[in-house]
Amino acid sequence: MNFTSDNEAPAHPAMIEAITRANEGFATAYANDEYSRQLDQRFSELFDTDCRVLPIATGTAANCAAIAELSPPWGAILCHQLAHIQNDENGAPEFYSGGAKLMPLPGENGKLDPSTVAATIDGAGSHGVHNVKPSVVSITQATECGTTYRPEEIRAIAHATHERGLHLHMDGARFANAVHHLDCHPSETTWKAGVDVLSFGATKNGALTAEAIVVFGHPEWLEGMERRRKRAGHLLSKMRYVSAQLLAMLDDDLWLTLAGTANERATQLARGIEANARASLHWPVESNEVFMKAEPEKLAALKAQGFLFHIWPGHDDLARLVCSWATTEEQVAEFLGALDE
Amino acid sequence: MNFTSDNEAPAHPAMIEAITRANEGFATAYANDEYSRQLDQRFSELFDTDCRVLPIATGTAANCAAIAELSPPWGAILCHQLAHIQNDENGAPEFYSGGAKLMPLPGENGKLDPSTVAATIDGAGSHGVHNVKPSVVSITQATECGTTYRPEEIRAIAHATHERGLHLHMDGARFANAVHHLDCHPSETTWKAGVDVLSFGATKNGALTAEAIVVFGHPEWLEGMERRRKRAGHLLSKMRYVSAQLLAMLDDDLWLTLAGTANERATQLARGIEANARASLHWPVESNEVFMKAEPEKLAALKAQGFLFHIWPGHDDLARLVCSWATTEEQVAEFLGALDE
Amino acid sequence: MNFTSDNEAPAHPAMIEAITRANEGFATAYANDEYSRQLDQRFSELFDTDCRVLPIATGTAANCAAIAELSPPWGAILCHQLAHIQNDENGAPEFYSGGAKLMPLPGENGKLDPSTVAATIDGAGSHGVHNVKPSVVSITQATECGTTYRPEEIRAIAHATHERGLHLHMDGARFANAVHHLDCHPSETTWKAGVDVLSFGATKNGALTAEAIVVFGHPEWLEGMERRRKRAGHLLSKMRYVSAQLLAMLDDDLWLTLAGTANERATQLARGIEANARASLHWPVESNEVFMKAEPEKLAALKAQGFLFHIWPGHDDLARLVCSWATTEEQVAEFLGALDE
Amino acid sequence: MNFTSDNEAPAHPAMIEAITRANEGFATAYANDEYSRQLDQRFSELFDTDCRVLPIATGTAANCAAIAELSPPWGAILCHQLAHIQNDENGAPEFYSGGAKLMPLPGENGKLDPSTVAATIDGAGSHGVHNVKPSVVSITQATECGTTYRPEEIRAIAHATHERGLHLHMDGARFANAVHHLDCHPSETTWKAGVDVLSFGATKNGALTAEAIVVFGHPEWLEGMERRRKRAGHLLSKMRYVSAQLLAMLDDDLWLTLAGTANERATQLARGIEANARASLHWPVESNEVFMKAEPEKLAALKAQGFLFHIWPGHDDLARLVCSWATTEEQVAEFLGALDE
Repeated sequence: MNFTSDNEAPAHPAMIEAITRANEGFATAYANDEYSRQLDQRFSELFDTDCRVLPIATGTAANCAAIAELSPPWGAILCHQLAHIQNDENGAPEFYSGGAKLMPLPGENGKLDPSTVAATIDGAGSHGVHNVKPSVVSITQATECGTTYRPEEIRAIAHATHERGLHLHMDGARFANAVHHLDCHPSETTWKAGVDVLSFGATKNGALTAEAIVVFGHPEWLEGMERRRKRAGHLLSKMRYVSAQLLAMLDDDLWLTLAGTANERATQLARGIEANARASLHWPVESNEVFMKAEPEKLAALKAQGFLFHIWPGHDDLARLVCSWATTEEQVAEFLGALDE
Repeated sequence: MNFTSDNEAPAHPAMIEAITRANEGFATAYANDEYSRQLDQRFSELFDTDCRVLPIATGTAANCAAIAELSPPWGAILCHQLAHIQNDENGAPEFYSGGAKLMPLPGENGKLDPSTVAATIDGAGSHGVHNVKPSVVSITQATECGTTYRPEEIRAIAHATHERGLHLHMDGARFANAVHHLDCHPSETTWKAGVDVLSFGATKNGALTAEAIVVFGHPEWLEGMERRRKRAGHLLSKMRYVSAQLLAMLDDDLWLTLAGTANERATQLARGIEANARASLHWPVESNEVFMKAEPEKLAALKAQGFLFHIWPGHDDLARLVCSWATTEEQVAEFLGALDE
Repeated sequence: MNFTSDNEAPAHPAMIEAITRANEGFATAYANDEYSRQLDQRFSELFDTDCRVLPIATGTAANCAAIAELSPPWGAILCHQLAHIQNDENGAPEFYSGGAKLMPLPGENGKLDPSTVAATIDGAGSHGVHNVKPSVVSITQATECGTTYRPEEIRAIAHATHERGLHLHMDGARFANAVHHLDCHPSETTWKAGVDVLSFGATKNGALTAEAIVVFGHPEWLEGMERRRKRAGHLLSKMRYVSAQLLAMLDDDLWLTLAGTANERATQLARGIEANARASLHWPVESNEVFMKAEPEKLAALKAQGFLFHIWPGHDDLARLVCSWATTEEQVAEFLGALDE
Repeated sequence: MNFTSDNEAPAHPAMIEAITRANEGFATAYANDEYSRQLDQRFSELFDTDCRVLPIATGTAANCAAIAELSPPWGAILCHQLAHIQNDENGAPEFYSGGAKLMPLPGENGKLDPSTVAATIDGAGSHGVHNVKPSVVSITQATECGTTYRPEEIRAIAHATHERGLHLHMDGARFANAVHHLDCHPSETTWKAGVDVLSFGATKNGALTAEAIVVFGHPEWLEGMERRRKRAGHLLSKMRYVSAQLLAMLDDDLWLTLAGTANERATQLARGIEANARASLHWPVESNEVFMKAEPEKLAALKAQGFLFHIWPGHDDLARLVCSWATTEEQVAEFLGALDE
């Protein structure tokens, strides 16, 4: 029973169907096919504003092709100290940007605080050309801790960011889970709150491999992002299969349906943990990730029983449990039962 | 009717089936799934030697993650002046390698000549640290001209390369077409001939998106290649879908069957062109690409009739016609009929 | 009266003389002149071991050409959070290394703690290829806080570093000041303590512009460092003028004499501050830098009187006062007098 | 007797004097000293237009900090196939630019031809994002062949460059020699002819080490160039010594006087060679470099007699003879005498 990561779940059948449908006849290569060409319009409808969309295979590539365009090589990228771009991408932002520096910041519940952002930017340039130059703030929605930023929290960060001349990126590997949890229109947590560019994730939400860079305004960024995508080997010749997955995700709001299932399972799991005397929640559960504190022995016992999950690095009493669209109520119940033993 | 590129053809149904089969239950992420873990053994059987395999989504990424490991940032990469890494990857080799320099060389029929390779290496370092340092020779099999290197031609290049302390990379985007044409064992045109690392292509040969870096010997290169793949955003979390395609390609030598069909269509096309008084072949047809010379007006007329193909950059009387596993005898016949008119 | 930095002081007359002497006739370019060719031997005598020396114009270039050779692009460089490479080089280490990540660490008095180093390395790689890979530890001698590592402190860091497979770099922009303060043989604080490569600084110590990368053991690093120096535009055609300065510094231990003067002025300054009720020392004075705490108004008043010094970024009650070979007792006395007012 | 390179000559005494004068008292570091602050005005007077100047230690650094600002990482830099940036900087342009590609072009007498430039740019982008994007044209004045561009030749190249949206860089390592030869105002061969940025060389012309990036118009480039200079370790803390040399060069047009001497010696040499039956000039002598063809045995004999010069790589019958401000008439006569024997 696998709570390791939502990216260990299978793809949703609708994704296989989408690929199968897209496999009809010849199609122009390199994202000039009829599926890829629909993306701008479909995402513009979704976000209720004109936006431009670059399909891409992975979240790391989406994050880094976007961020590198927003930061010169001597730029600094402010992010939470638990952010994926800081900890889990093997220096990909540095690679794509030509050596920009990440500035990892603390922040409760995995979220950046606007005052920390403001103070960091204000303090960073005192030595002029000797210092790197803050250029981008990147936030993760939902966060690495399974929490979500509320729209007003994003607005405050965006305000601190924009009034200092920087741009705001959102890593939305679990964007669907956040939007479902917030129960808001996707625009509320993105461009209306000041997000300039979004890495829209579908892979963790039931696609095989499909992400999208969504650019709000700023048509001047498109060429650079396209060049960076190509140059990194991410302009798939047969992009139709990626784009078809993205389109199928948007059909009938499948992306929210799948995220809803994952979130509900996480809620079920969280309630069970709260009810358990020997375990507790470490961070609020606001998406599909649950962080559970328990005795290391208990965690080991659960692993020995075949339950799969991550022990948080450096914390042997903290388990990360991730639910997906494919996680069932029975699986959660079984886990909670084992926890009770 | 599409002769633009083999990457505009649909994927073969076996690829969709492979993905569908792989979509069973949970699987360890990041190429630690059961499909990805079979690759070393299956390719070792295919090549009749121990080799190590990294699945990856695109040919550009395969070429560049491999080459960058073989070249320091101050290295030089020798290749044919028509090579994909020189002309069609938007500087990806420079990006992955941290700024190595490509040295594009002339050579008949799209092939490097061993004596040119030797002379270029010998002449390149006369000024020591002021010059870039030749480090890799990269050949393309089948070439951009649709020709193939015979094993003894590769051996001669490998000899010139190795005795000067460099390594030999093969861009095998159309490797299957070359092997089918040569009718030899895949080992004969790779490690037995001195190739150190191969970009094994499946996408152009009927996969959705699936390539592999195949390393012969040199286990010391693996870490760097894996790191570069990750850092470029190419370590797919759900790699099982890529690996499943590669495995399905090897089942019953599907890769050779598909390449065989494409090659046969190209041969049919070539014969028709040779028989036509107003068209001629520009390069020998030794894979699935056909380069046809004809009056620009004739080419324009064919395009106007709906036939799709590339006009070779800078040569308005030269058409590139690419066949794929999905090209039919009837389509070729129809094209030849139109050519006759 | 200038306590801003030792690099605002003039060069010592012996440096001008050295350059003038070196300006005789023609000399082979690019560090193949007779001055540059003496460096290996002269520094080997100085350090009492065989070492290899690359003259270079700036400390940033010395640090980064050295570190980049010791770290792959996906490497991590551990340093103190106040280190020059982290704060004052505008991302030069990232640039030279192709995007390695600096890991700034806390540590009392500007010094790294071996246990922090060990724990950071041990914790850094838990996620394998997803994490950057610690590759270099860089310490600064004397530190940015004006303190110095004692040989046994370096040995402890070197032990933690080497047993985990990393290498130890020392930024010695104020190496002379440290050696003078420690009153030890230069070998004691370098290779005998486990330092693998040293950026030997002379510019802050009275040269016009002259630094040296000193490599202990590891001849395999030389080519890469030379290539990186050249590629960054730091292989001066007329290197003789840099090398002549370095040689003149070693003559009769001028480097230690000059550092001694600077250190003595700092000690004089420190004693005066300690004796003053309205000021105090922030860090122990163990080289030529003095960090003085005082009321912001007092610091402003001193500035208004024409005394030049840095206010420490983010600390308006902390002044950095740097002495040089050219600082006189009278100047220090005058400053202390003004402080007393 | 050294005809190897002008960078093997000693510095002119006025340079030593300039450094000595600049060595008075304290000076603000990092190019904020009174010498460096005069550069904008003094070069603006020299060029008879407002320009901005960045002092820097080497020609490679000047070229590459300038070019990298004008080219994105996916850019292409067009230059002559004999250009220093292509052959003699160990990939520094690629390093500084983050992997741009050099496009070396043929051209008679070491000079680019406007029609070649135009055709190369026009042909380079036919495949859109798959191709690198031409961004900079770099010409060398005087060229690597010792020839000089006449103003109208530069204007033609600039026209082809600018109307295609690219910028024009001039590598002026031997700019003084070119201006002296042309006997024109420095503006005529730079901004008035369409040059956007100049690497103004002084090192080869009698400085110890001093170059300048001179930007005509385009204030938007300054930040990036300054950042790149710093990041490469080229923002010398004691920049006053570089700037003082540059200023002294401009005093009483010393730069032209020195170049004039070198050019006259080259002319003397050229006449002697023309008069000699067993030697001939390979390229027109239009600066301080002379390319002499002679029997390899004769060249070897001259070397054996102690004359120092380069044999052109790959051409054992072609000698490069460089004169400098320090070359005497007697030395030239002695060489010609030996040639006669």
